[in-house]
Amino acid sequence: MQRRSEPVRVVRARGSDDDRLVREEPLTVRVAARGGPASDVWTTLRTPGHDLDLALGWALSEGLVTTLDDVVDVHHCTDGGAPDPNSVTVRLDADVLPDLAALERRGASTAACGLCGRDELHALLRRCPPAPREDVALPLDVLDRLAVEVRGHQPLFDATGGCHAAGVATADGTLLHVREDVGRHNAVDAVLGAALRGRDRVDVLLLSGRAGYELVAKAVAARVAVVAAVGAATDLAAATADAAGLTLVTFLGRPHGGTVLTRADRLGLTTGAPQ
Amino acid sequence: MQRRSEPVRVVRARGSDDDRLVREEPLTVRVAARGGPASDVWTTLRTPGHDLDLALGWALSEGLVTTLDDVVDVHHCTDGGAPDPNSVTVRLDADVLPDLAALERRGASTAACGLCGRDELHALLRRCPPAPREDVALPLDVLDRLAVEVRGHQPLFDATGGCHAAGVATADGTLLHVREDVGRHNAVDAVLGAALRGRDRVDVLLLSGRAGYELVAKAVAARVAVVAAVGAATDLAAATADAAGLTLVTFLGRPHGGTVLTRADRLGLTTGAPQ
Repeated sequence: MQRRSEPVRVVRARGSDDDRLVREEPLTVRVAARGGPASDVWTTLRTPGHDLDLALGWALSEGLVTTLDDVVDVHHCTDGGAPDPNSVTVRLDADVLPDLAALERRGASTAACGLCGRDELHALLRRCPPAPREDVALPLDVLDRLAVEVRGHQPLFDATGGCHAAGVATADGTLLHVREDVGRHNAVDAVLGAALRGRDRVDVLLLSGRAGYELVAKAVAARVAVVAAVGAATDLAAATADAAGLTLVTFLGRPHGGTVLTRADRLGLTTGAPQ
Repeated sequence: MQRRSEPVRVVRARGSDDDRLVREEPLTVRVAARGGPASDVWTTLRTPGHDLDLALGWALSEGLVTTLDDVVDVHHCTDGGAPDPNSVTVRLDADVLPDLAALERRGASTAACGLCGRDELHALLRRCPPAPREDVALPLDVLDRLAVEVRGHQPLFDATGGCHAAGVATADGTLLHVREDVGRHNAVDAVLGAALRGRDRVDVLLLSGRAGYELVAKAVAARVAVVAAVGAATDLAAATADAAGLTLVTFLGRPHGGTVLTRADRLGLTTGAPQ
């Protein structure tokens, strides 16, 4: 694996000291049909180390693939030479290959703006009809425990204090994968990609930070039933979760306890009288 | 001003409660010459309320303008009807107007990838030659005090827990402006735009979160001398600050005190023996 942090000599009020910085490097994702030419469709600043997961999860989040069967191959680009550590090619089955020119335009545009508000929310729901996932139920304290477990799998954060994490779990409380990255969106893409590669059933997506629209949209595209965040959510994220029938929980592990914004019934909770 | 947060009814383990969510809506920025047609060049998910500052600061960060004299006008788009709350037009002097078609492509591409790593770092430094700013000097405890002062100007965070803040100050410790936004990058653009509108001299940029490459690049474009963050920095951010001669301080107000990554001399500190 590529280095994920760098040693650095720093200065503090009482003298100099050794520390580490999280690495931030660009990754370009290319998409191609089996045997066809590849097009650059997306570039992100990410922490190296889980590039194949990140590229696969991005393809899932963007709706390019829905199962691993849609993917022919994913690898660091070689173009006949040594592998380029900052470029990954995803080869797709011809049946699912999108219009690459349109994707280059859309890729740039969606990455530039997140996606764009309530109009885009409706487009998302047309593109990714919500899976009902009515089978998924778990108590709130299982989410609290999972958040603690994710925190125990953040060695890069422990070393640098400079990155986010995302985890995926099943409703019985089994944590499947955790990925860390300098970018919150990359951490989510990478952990969804790890689950796609493992052909794992994912019920819960756990976030070390906040839940904005884009992260909830990724969960909708990946057919996750519950998004549980240590941080806050936005109004657009809550509206998206509501429209998709997804359970959205914020402020996990905080003094007031988790705050459930949508579909509290999956957690066995109902809208009762104020406490 | 547009609403910046929304009331919401939430469910907690012990019953339901009232809370507020930070608002997240798309803003499209259009650029035009005096009297000429406007091109959509950038869209971001932002919290409404400081759109003109945000658009101006974005134009400064992108190197489209360097002083307020380059700007003819900035306003919410009307297209002959009522103002569109989610669209702002920046009219530029013809002398500084960029190739709008190229900007549409570049706008999309830079926003998509942050900017792209060390090659882009060199392009940034060619485009925005570092101002020496050798005149700027202040002690570390002034940065600590400024960070506390910024924290006291975050009503949206107090209400929602879901947004970041950025502040600008002078080296004598005067806090000039604070802006809050759901996006860290937007908060920085908006506060730099507020200073541009006020024709304020800015020595210090304060960040409520982490300092990644893109935020340090904005500081370089705005000719700021010191970036001081409550969170961590990345290796690429530190390399950028080093190349631009900018002082980069992280972990302000944390138990170990501020960590100085570059140009500690402006703070009267030198690389001494480990403590």
